[in-house]
Amino acid sequence: MGIKTMQDLFVNELRDIYHAEKQLVKALPKMAKAANANELRQAIESHLEETRGQVERLEQVFDMLDLGKRAKPCEAMEGLISEGQEVIDEVEDPEVRDAGLIVSAQKVEHYEIAGYGSLIAMAKQLGYREAGALLAQTLEEEKAADSKLNRLALGGINKKAA
Amino acid sequence: MGIKTMQDLFVNELRDIYHAEKQLVKALPKMAKAANANELRQAIESHLEETRGQVERLEQVFDMLDLGKRAKPCEAMEGLISEGQEVIDEVEDPEVRDAGLIVSAQKVEHYEIAGYGSLIAMAKQLGYREAGALLAQTLEEEKAADSKLNRLALGGINKKAA
Repeated sequence: MGIKTMQDLFVNELRDIYHAEKQLVKALPKMAKAANANELRQAIESHLEETRGQVERLEQVFDMLDLGKRAKPCEAMEGLISEGQEVIDEVEDPEVRDAGLIVSAQKVEHYEIAGYGSLIAMAKQLGYREAGALLAQTLEEEKAADSKLNRLALGGINKKAA
Repeated sequence: MGIKTMQDLFVNELRDIYHAEKQLVKALPKMAKAANANELRQAIESHLEETRGQVERLEQVFDMLDLGKRAKPCEAMEGLISEGQEVIDEVEDPEVRDAGLIVSAQKVEHYEIAGYGSLIAMAKQLGYREAGALLAQTLEEEKAADSKLNRLALGGINKKAA
């Protein structure tokens, strides 16, 4: 890890979430393709567009702080993405698969909510005001994506599958 | 995975979170020991007590549904716990370590918030009212634990480390 200071911790977390978002840009199209319900597919596709913008915001933060744009692989996020892939590969019933995709996607969203929440708290303490404001925009998008998935889970997709 | 029905998906997730909680019962004492600030150590210790109760609630749910109490190892959660262990082993500055422990703990809490949220949504659809009510108690505890960590992160621990 090589973490000695609060800034090191911030940069470590920034590289972790950068890796997470870049993996998601690759994983979300597969999840969208595997979705059965139109509204779920559309929700995933629209979150893919957002995720591309979130990658760009992180690159702006790297630039602001004169940091190299390096991603740091994260075992937890890789685990979440491979769980999503398992749902795609192994769950045959289209409605149960949709419910499983929602479970996987919400775990990813919550991973990101925790990551961005921590980054924002650290940015505040470190006096990175502009970076903190950018990261806060992404946090709001992640929370909205999670709420949308909640509504889909409770509002019919699971009901059809049960 | 062997998931064909909505009930299979529910049981799969139940076994995943059961594994997560049991791992946490082992990991939290190490995190508490590594914490520098009293209020962080106390927050972790009190969440350890809650976590023991959450394991018992999951066992009640297994009993209610006539299911064997089996845990299913989860790569994502194992990754989160080993990240926490890295913070303990490698971050020497006690205040930066506290900030790092908070990051790890919040990721774990959010993993659980997503997991219990999904279980509750599925329990509702499957008509598991009593199980859903027990799981909802745990979800409230996880959200409260996350909020407490947020307050610690913003209210001084990170400030000291910055």
